[in-house]
Amino acid sequence: MNNWDKLDAHLLKINSLRHASSILMADEATVMPKKGAGARANALSDLAAFEHQLAGDERIEGWIEKAYKEVKQSEQIKALKLLEEDYKIKKGLKQELVKKSTKAFITCEQEWRKLRGDNNWKGLEKSLQEVLNYARELASVRASILGLNIYDACLDQYSRGLRENRVDDLFAKLKSFLRDFIPKAVEHSSRRPQKKWQGPFELENQKKAGVHFAKYIGLDLEGALIGESSHPFCGGVSQDIRLTTRYRQDEFLSSLMGIMHETGHALYEQGLPLEWQHWPVGQACGMALHESQSLFMENCIARSDEFWKKALPELKKILKSSELEGLSLEDFLSHLKVVRPSKIRVDADEVTYPMHIILRFEIERDLVKGNIQVKDIPELWHHKMREYLGVETQGDYKDGPMQDVHWVSGAFGYFPCYTLGAIKASQFYDCILKQIPNARELIEEGDFSLINQWRAKHIWHKASFETPQEIVKSACQEELNQEYFCRYLQDRYYRE
Amino acid sequence: MNNWDKLDAHLLKINSLRHASSILMADEATVMPKKGAGARANALSDLAAFEHQLAGDERIEGWIEKAYKEVKQSEQIKALKLLEEDYKIKKGLKQELVKKSTKAFITCEQEWRKLRGDNNWKGLEKSLQEVLNYARELASVRASILGLNIYDACLDQYSRGLRENRVDDLFAKLKSFLRDFIPKAVEHSSRRPQKKWQGPFELENQKKAGVHFAKYIGLDLEGALIGESSHPFCGGVSQDIRLTTRYRQDEFLSSLMGIMHETGHALYEQGLPLEWQHWPVGQACGMALHESQSLFMENCIARSDEFWKKALPELKKILKSSELEGLSLEDFLSHLKVVRPSKIRVDADEVTYPMHIILRFEIERDLVKGNIQVKDIPELWHHKMREYLGVETQGDYKDGPMQDVHWVSGAFGYFPCYTLGAIKASQFYDCILKQIPNARELIEEGDFSLINQWRAKHIWHKASFETPQEIVKSACQEELNQEYFCRYLQDRYYRE
Repeated sequence: MNNWDKLDAHLLKINSLRHASSILMADEATVMPKKGAGARANALSDLAAFEHQLAGDERIEGWIEKAYKEVKQSEQIKALKLLEEDYKIKKGLKQELVKKSTKAFITCEQEWRKLRGDNNWKGLEKSLQEVLNYARELASVRASILGLNIYDACLDQYSRGLRENRVDDLFAKLKSFLRDFIPKAVEHSSRRPQKKWQGPFELENQKKAGVHFAKYIGLDLEGALIGESSHPFCGGVSQDIRLTTRYRQDEFLSSLMGIMHETGHALYEQGLPLEWQHWPVGQACGMALHESQSLFMENCIARSDEFWKKALPELKKILKSSELEGLSLEDFLSHLKVVRPSKIRVDADEVTYPMHIILRFEIERDLVKGNIQVKDIPELWHHKMREYLGVETQGDYKDGPMQDVHWVSGAFGYFPCYTLGAIKASQFYDCILKQIPNARELIEEGDFSLINQWRAKHIWHKASFETPQEIVKSACQEELNQEYFCRYLQDRYYRE
Repeated sequence: MNNWDKLDAHLLKINSLRHASSILMADEATVMPKKGAGARANALSDLAAFEHQLAGDERIEGWIEKAYKEVKQSEQIKALKLLEEDYKIKKGLKQELVKKSTKAFITCEQEWRKLRGDNNWKGLEKSLQEVLNYARELASVRASILGLNIYDACLDQYSRGLRENRVDDLFAKLKSFLRDFIPKAVEHSSRRPQKKWQGPFELENQKKAGVHFAKYIGLDLEGALIGESSHPFCGGVSQDIRLTTRYRQDEFLSSLMGIMHETGHALYEQGLPLEWQHWPVGQACGMALHESQSLFMENCIARSDEFWKKALPELKKILKSSELEGLSLEDFLSHLKVVRPSKIRVDADEVTYPMHIILRFEIERDLVKGNIQVKDIPELWHHKMREYLGVETQGDYKDGPMQDVHWVSGAFGYFPCYTLGAIKASQFYDCILKQIPNARELIEEGDFSLINQWRAKHIWHKASFETPQEIVKSACQEELNQEYFCRYLQDRYYRE
């Protein structure tokens, strides 16, 4: 066996551990009975330790060095380079730290699932501070290896090459645009007449609608399972995607748009090159690009007038609600184009959404840099919510700083990816409308084959063989530019 | 850290791998999308290899040797002894063989899931022969280490100390009793009037009934999940049991009795001492005893007149079927006491069931000993079904030799445990009726606390600290005796 093959076999083993962890995590969030939590936390922590042990195997360094001399294809060389970078980082992280931090993350997430319902911020503070401490410790190691500041190290983990300066610059321009734009869009939206509905919308029918529209936009359901969880996610592995949403009886749009969002993620995963799935170079190209794929589907496509021309009659047929019978396309769309500041990020419209992210970015940056502590979060949260969105959250932790799974599970540096993803999505959308003839008609007809082919070619199949920056540039012949997003919002929500 | 603690920590790691495999297997059988099969087979095979690697760690031998000198409690000494035995066997099995065989078992089981529906025996033959070859190779290793013949090694794997001679003896007596008894019980049953029902019985209501009666007989649903699969099973881990049944619209008894059976297994698992769960001595005491716990619930309890006095009105309320409204207790019980030879083992009544097992015992013994090949199975199957039960299965592989998951997943030597379990169950039932005052009234009232306490004390809490033989003897003050089973069948089904 040559060295390349040794690496390949070794990575396949690591892949099996990742497979196990991914499915166990999806199982935990969807169906695991309550008393299974302790054993599950131990199992996931041990699996992470095994994975870390294999990923840090000292033979890897030698195999990589020798494999460079064995291979000729540029794909293989890229694969080795990315693996080498990853190896350096993993090598630097002590196994004990990985194990302890993983356990702290899982434990805090499990506590959060209980405490959130009780609005019990105080009960969460201690274990969240512990999570932050571990996240900072992990980021410090990464920072010193990569020569970055500690928050850059957090960002880099979720989108290779992403830096605080770049985020700061894009977000500053966006914040300035939105400060002016939001009040106008809100005002415009409030003047649009809206027929309210009350439900109940049967959960079984909502579930059927989810399956139907996931398939409608291209999901292969022979390789994906749609479940239910308190916070929607897309997990599992490429051949066995686990995506979820959450259901309410009094309305159906939040569950359905959750499905559209997660299906966007799932399509990316299903489109990755399977033969490279165990190599770092075969993974999705960071979470900002991942979010661009989910937001493209959820917002660019599934909030467009075109999309619902054919889709609305089908939705009505599945939901079987007398309330929807007489609903016109325009009435329906008014629900999808509401702009109204609110407390909950995942339910926010796409105009106010970036403000939720900017708030989180500003807080987590200071948490990670050690400028503030976990106990300081609520005050800052309430202050910024008031300032950016005019929303009052004082005393409401459940739908305030306790609403997200990210921080409680140690994911600091993730949030900016959502809004960077929104910017990318609008830029890709602009490209697709320009490059594919009749793109709007195809969306109208529910024919996503050409659009998904374009995305597969320019984004999915490339996996991490190119950087996010290169992918945007070669797809759109241009650097990432937040202007596309601002223009997109103006086109869709309000133009003077 | 002393050597005992080193062992304890090491076993906890192995336990985490087992946790992952158990949940992944349950997930595969219940919800995994089709295209996930290949990746899942690889993951499970790698997890088994990791587990085998840890279980065969060369340091274990030294740790055990030194730990004997550190510990004083007899429990700890028993724990070390059983671990030592297990270690010797695992040490003898080459990792490559374990990995290849696990993969062959999983692959064949996955193929079987598809082929069974098409009645395609020919398509299965090759991979089942491969499974048999691997099972024989594994058993040979075990046989040479334990000084047993190859089929004894298969049996020993599922019930420590169980030998072909003992099975042969018990089954010979039972076969002779049943040859005479079955025709009479069948005749008696056929004279009992029976109101048929046709359904449909809504699946959602059947699922609710399953949950209700699992709880009714003592299952802790905060630590268990009830799912659906093509073949019912009880898997998962002690704190997170996964049990399943299968549903039909035209009748509800097979799904419900499936739940009663699997809940019997689940209660045993939930009753094991949690602090020993990662030690061999903390495991359930073999599959024959395990089956005694499931059959106790499914048959001794849930086919008794007493049980249904309170349970039937509750069942009717949940199923909401107009067909059941006027149904009397006697009419209902006639369905539970049908004796009618049939093709399917899992749907067989408890009178004819042992013949299904004796048939399988005779075939698998010859398969394992190399006297016959996989291609010979159908002819033997059809011949014996005709002879023992008067049932014709020629050409019907789906409900003939393709009906079970055991052989396709490599589990040769397992089948005898079902009927040994039935014998044990009837003997325990006899003890309980004698030792617990008012046991019949308690069953009538749906109060299983004392009965489950008796079982916890005499069976569940003992885990593998005693042998199956010791457990039977100390609970019943007597050796295992098939006469209890024969008498039980006569009491319930026919007495001259």
